Amino acid sequence: MQKLDVAILGATGAVGQRFIQLLEGHPWFRVCEVVGSHRSAGKPYAEAARWILNDNPPASAAGLTVKALDDPLQSPLVFSALPKEAAITRELALAEAGHVVCTNASANRMLADVPLLLPEVNAEHLGLLDVQRRKRGWNGGALIANSNCTVMPVVMALKPLTKYGIRRLHLVSEQAVSGAGYPGLSSMDMIDNILPYVPGDESKMETESLKMLGSFDGDGIRALDMVVSATCTRVPVIDGHLINISVELDEGPALASIIDDWVAWRAADPIPALPSAPAYPLQYLDQVDRPQPRRDRDAGHGMQTSIGRLRECPILGYKFAALSHNTVRGAAGCSILNAELAAVEGYIEGFHAVETAQAL
Amino acid sequence: MQKLDVAILGATGAVGQRFIQLLEGHPWFRVCEVVGSHRSAGKPYAEAARWILNDNPPASAAGLTVKALDDPLQSPLVFSALPKEAAITRELALAEAGHVVCTNASANRMLADVPLLLPEVNAEHLGLLDVQRRKRGWNGGALIANSNCTVMPVVMALKPLTKYGIRRLHLVSEQAVSGAGYPGLSSMDMIDNILPYVPGDESKMETESLKMLGSFDGDGIRALDMVVSATCTRVPVIDGHLINISVELDEGPALASIIDDWVAWRAADPIPALPSAPAYPLQYLDQVDRPQPRRDRDAGHGMQTSIGRLRECPILGYKFAALSHNTVRGAAGCSILNAELAAVEGYIEGFHAVETAQAL
Amino acid sequence: MQKLDVAILGATGAVGQRFIQLLEGHPWFRVCEVVGSHRSAGKPYAEAARWILNDNPPASAAGLTVKALDDPLQSPLVFSALPKEAAITRELALAEAGHVVCTNASANRMLADVPLLLPEVNAEHLGLLDVQRRKRGWNGGALIANSNCTVMPVVMALKPLTKYGIRRLHLVSEQAVSGAGYPGLSSMDMIDNILPYVPGDESKMETESLKMLGSFDGDGIRALDMVVSATCTRVPVIDGHLINISVELDEGPALASIIDDWVAWRAADPIPALPSAPAYPLQYLDQVDRPQPRRDRDAGHGMQTSIGRLRECPILGYKFAALSHNTVRGAAGCSILNAELAAVEGYIEGFHAVETAQAL
Amino acid sequence: MQKLDVAILGATGAVGQRFIQLLEGHPWFRVCEVVGSHRSAGKPYAEAARWILNDNPPASAAGLTVKALDDPLQSPLVFSALPKEAAITRELALAEAGHVVCTNASANRMLADVPLLLPEVNAEHLGLLDVQRRKRGWNGGALIANSNCTVMPVVMALKPLTKYGIRRLHLVSEQAVSGAGYPGLSSMDMIDNILPYVPGDESKMETESLKMLGSFDGDGIRALDMVVSATCTRVPVIDGHLINISVELDEGPALASIIDDWVAWRAADPIPALPSAPAYPLQYLDQVDRPQPRRDRDAGHGMQTSIGRLRECPILGYKFAALSHNTVRGAAGCSILNAELAAVEGYIEGFHAVETAQAL
Repeated sequence: MQKLDVAILGATGAVGQRFIQLLEGHPWFRVCEVVGSHRSAGKPYAEAARWILNDNPPASAAGLTVKALDDPLQSPLVFSALPKEAAITRELALAEAGHVVCTNASANRMLADVPLLLPEVNAEHLGLLDVQRRKRGWNGGALIANSNCTVMPVVMALKPLTKYGIRRLHLVSEQAVSGAGYPGLSSMDMIDNILPYVPGDESKMETESLKMLGSFDGDGIRALDMVVSATCTRVPVIDGHLINISVELDEGPALASIIDDWVAWRAADPIPALPSAPAYPLQYLDQVDRPQPRRDRDAGHGMQTSIGRLRECPILGYKFAALSHNTVRGAAGCSILNAELAAVEGYIEGFHAVETAQAL
Repeated sequence: MQKLDVAILGATGAVGQRFIQLLEGHPWFRVCEVVGSHRSAGKPYAEAARWILNDNPPASAAGLTVKALDDPLQSPLVFSALPKEAAITRELALAEAGHVVCTNASANRMLADVPLLLPEVNAEHLGLLDVQRRKRGWNGGALIANSNCTVMPVVMALKPLTKYGIRRLHLVSEQAVSGAGYPGLSSMDMIDNILPYVPGDESKMETESLKMLGSFDGDGIRALDMVVSATCTRVPVIDGHLINISVELDEGPALASIIDDWVAWRAADPIPALPSAPAYPLQYLDQVDRPQPRRDRDAGHGMQTSIGRLRECPILGYKFAALSHNTVRGAAGCSILNAELAAVEGYIEGFHAVETAQAL
Repeated sequence: MQKLDVAILGATGAVGQRFIQLLEGHPWFRVCEVVGSHRSAGKPYAEAARWILNDNPPASAAGLTVKALDDPLQSPLVFSALPKEAAITRELALAEAGHVVCTNASANRMLADVPLLLPEVNAEHLGLLDVQRRKRGWNGGALIANSNCTVMPVVMALKPLTKYGIRRLHLVSEQAVSGAGYPGLSSMDMIDNILPYVPGDESKMETESLKMLGSFDGDGIRALDMVVSATCTRVPVIDGHLINISVELDEGPALASIIDDWVAWRAADPIPALPSAPAYPLQYLDQVDRPQPRRDRDAGHGMQTSIGRLRECPILGYKFAALSHNTVRGAAGCSILNAELAAVEGYIEGFHAVETAQAL
Repeated sequence: MQKLDVAILGATGAVGQRFIQLLEGHPWFRVCEVVGSHRSAGKPYAEAARWILNDNPPASAAGLTVKALDDPLQSPLVFSALPKEAAITRELALAEAGHVVCTNASANRMLADVPLLLPEVNAEHLGLLDVQRRKRGWNGGALIANSNCTVMPVVMALKPLTKYGIRRLHLVSEQAVSGAGYPGLSSMDMIDNILPYVPGDESKMETESLKMLGSFDGDGIRALDMVVSATCTRVPVIDGHLINISVELDEGPALASIIDDWVAWRAADPIPALPSAPAYPLQYLDQVDRPQPRRDRDAGHGMQTSIGRLRECPILGYKFAALSHNTVRGAAGCSILNAELAAVEGYIEGFHAVETAQAL
């Protein structure tokens, strides 16, 4: 099978590196363009990127020459790990030029015609791409966003409970440092210490969750009507965001029923067959002290969400903890899964549907 | 001034060591008996205790011979850092034998006639000692408890808000490892990791807070009528518990009024003049990312509570973070302050009131 | 291919868990007996073991019933992760009863007829098994040890340099906490702190290295004549021991020649074809700040040794840093590799040589 | 007593903040000028400095207006925490303009006429100020440097041993992150990790130690003739550098004699009476696992050096560990002690010798 060429924007940063790591050996996609800052442009990737993940950059990417942000790209599929400012205009320009852009940047997430896609949760939001193309006159291009990394485990855990009616949601996160990129947080702040504040994340929790759990009516997303209160804190953990969740439901299911809902939950076809989809989107851990970031973040190759500690909340009815890997499921891995879904749904022209069908 | 002799139960453990450290150079009390396990009994303290605080044990304590748990004591005042099982009967027996026992153990906290004392908050609960003596026939003895270390910063921060009527309280703690004693938590659990569960603490949060904020009617404590939901987690921090608090009030004061309440709040006389009382019980930090455990736990020599991040909560109305030092304000330091109050209020026979008055 | 049954002694501890994790899906061996303390005996493994590695215990082991230490075993191959005291007699008794015992315990390492095996370095020491059987009258049984986890990266890095003559070796280690087992080191000692001392390890470094690099003369090991000075310290790292090495050689090769020696070095046949052998035993990292524990410990699935920072030492001539994964290469992984070598060399009766040959 | 006005260069950085913290309440000096970058100039100090030490900046400094680097200064005494590039010319210019500059920057340390002062060790090097003034034509100005923070505990521990003749010195450091300033090292590098390299520090160890232990002949420093090999590593510790030291002496004193030398060692008059001098420059800790950074860095208010683990080294004869607080003794605290010595020795014109004499 011939693979689809992909480009990575912001390739030398922390999330960019995760894209390159996760795409190594991908059955459908192959990285052939890496885009960095002006300082990096023209250098071999291995030299331009200070590799911060384990081991060294994969050989396939190490030799690529870094392109500048404004250089034209030939890859039909583009992953964006750009900083917010750079993302605003560049992502839209690339989509207009015919590229399908899957972005992890927050810049364009809340645009009305940009899906905040989490395939297991809201695959039907992909229909917004038709709206995009119609309204913006895009020919083959598209822009697909994924949410903030802290929102994802919350929405994954809530989706099977939407049938009970979700009224109010109280969230307190304990977030890993990789969420702030590299160098990101100073070691002087994160040894024998925590930070009670994560700039910008609380409002993202309170808005993006409503959009992701909303319904697509053929023209736009109607946000879920739910009240969300979020507190975001930072802890000395490398990867893995844990969120302490209290939720109020319209109905009053038994605790055991909720666990059954989580364990039985599966994504709709064709999602379970996508290369990056975990075998099971959720796992419920019985041990009283789980999930834990270091021990559970890599479940399902970092794409599974782990839940534990379901019990009654005297105020909102139910409380529990959810965790997922913030730079895999919560960033690069989700963007790749989004692209896989867009590919099999026919939104990426260069993708050879027949061969894919075989692969599936 | 002659000092009052004090004994320390559980003197070789983590909280016992903190008692010894904080009592070094105390103007009223001097440690003259240290009590440990059978394994430690008969050894010099410096040899029996694996000192885990900074530096080395103070010379005054280093040479004391450790007594066994059942050995008779001569000190009028006894501080207890016993494990729960050992505390249940021993503390009551010592009180019956005429000692004033100030305990940090949880064993007898919720007995109806034992005050859960936090001088700035509920000094009037000390009146329970008269009830104790009357009902139990104790002659000069008494038992005074302090609360769980995680409850304290919550109650301190709430006290000035009780005038608005507190209805519901949602708590998510991020607790330091010293709360589990020594060796306590394994380093294998606390590097690049957090634990979403602290055994026993959630129920303590949900019950002890009601008792501490309750009113004393001359015969017993009427608990505050308030709904509390607590989630307790453990983070890789040595000292300092941070609690993310959401609270619902009957009234709707402005945020600025609440900050004014905190800043203006003072304990009633004679508490501000006690040797271990902080100059100000509370401080409000304006920086958006404070309080932080390492930077704020030592405020007021570890006896002050730091508050920050007051803002609106879409669900309960108000949310903020509070922090205090869990083994100083939250354990040994609070017991000592409790003893100081009991002394000046005349509950410790051996305490020379006249000289104290001079000291004040 | 039918797999060889193996038993694991000390299966519920930290190294025992690593054995179970690494043997999951092993092409030749399958865990069918797990042995624990009297407290664990009779329980299902998943219940008896507080699993401290990532995720949960593999399903294949989770359902095994834990046996007591003295229960008879049927597996021809036994891996031992016993504490030292328990290991002394039990390992010898099992070898006498006909089992091939591959041990990670230190108890019997320095017995004259027990090989301290590191296949890439001293495969010929396996010949000591013939001496063992002859002198002790063992029939099919054998005892193979691996060294202390801190010695291994040192010996791996030195082996290619033995041709230059090694005179003196100065070692300062920075060791991960998993080397102390679970719960092992207190979190109170390992947050914002290091320990300048690791009980017992310095003397192991100074003796085991001489035996491992020694020569087998058909009857015993003649230790290498080399002076070793070791300092062992503990740092807040989960896995991966880093050792700062200064070495004096008889000859004075260029730095570049030494790097070439490392990069070109391969184990002799049949070692490179063993299932647990890394593709390359060593890697030399050019970056000035590598190797690093978190980023390099998993190289070669935790079985590769990473070296960096080779430069001149004004005192001993050469200095560099070496690192490997202490519970994989330095413990369970090495024992498994040792067993694989013993199997293909015909020392394990139950191992089907023909099928193995096919596998190779 | 009227206090001497002092200025602080680089006042908003990590070491600058430590100067301000340590000078709060100083009996002789008072901070009246703070100098920062162009970005900070004109702002109140409390606003310009992101305070990273505990609590908040002292009130006395909080209200000072930050000056720009080139602004003229009126304070006779200037402490410099400038980055290297900025320090080179500015420090010399200020000295030429008549200020006594005590610098923590490395820029001018190795100039032949600049003393690398550590009062307990080489107070006589202060005589270089006369050389400076004579050769450079300075009138009242002077430049006094202190060494790299990692060198200090080494030199402190070695000074009492110089009588035995020091031949060779092998050093492996484990350094705290505060040595790299703020933000300095990324938290992504310092969680579950160590770095085997500290840029620039190894050569400083190998040169500055020779100068500090050298002798002043009235005209310059004759460096000690000693071979030094240094390896510098970084560990996840906030403050406190630990160095593993092996040393070869001409003579062969008993271990007990060396400990006696350390314990008995005192600085010459008038140093013990200086406000920032520790009561004892060294302490020897008997526990096998000390010194430790968190537990011992604050000994002597951070100005004492802690030593432990003295034992035989099979290669160089003796080995031990030494530790001191890198931003107190190793940076700001040492500069202040240097200034105190210069003041009482008459090198600072504005210092009122008579009143000082009373203070002493």
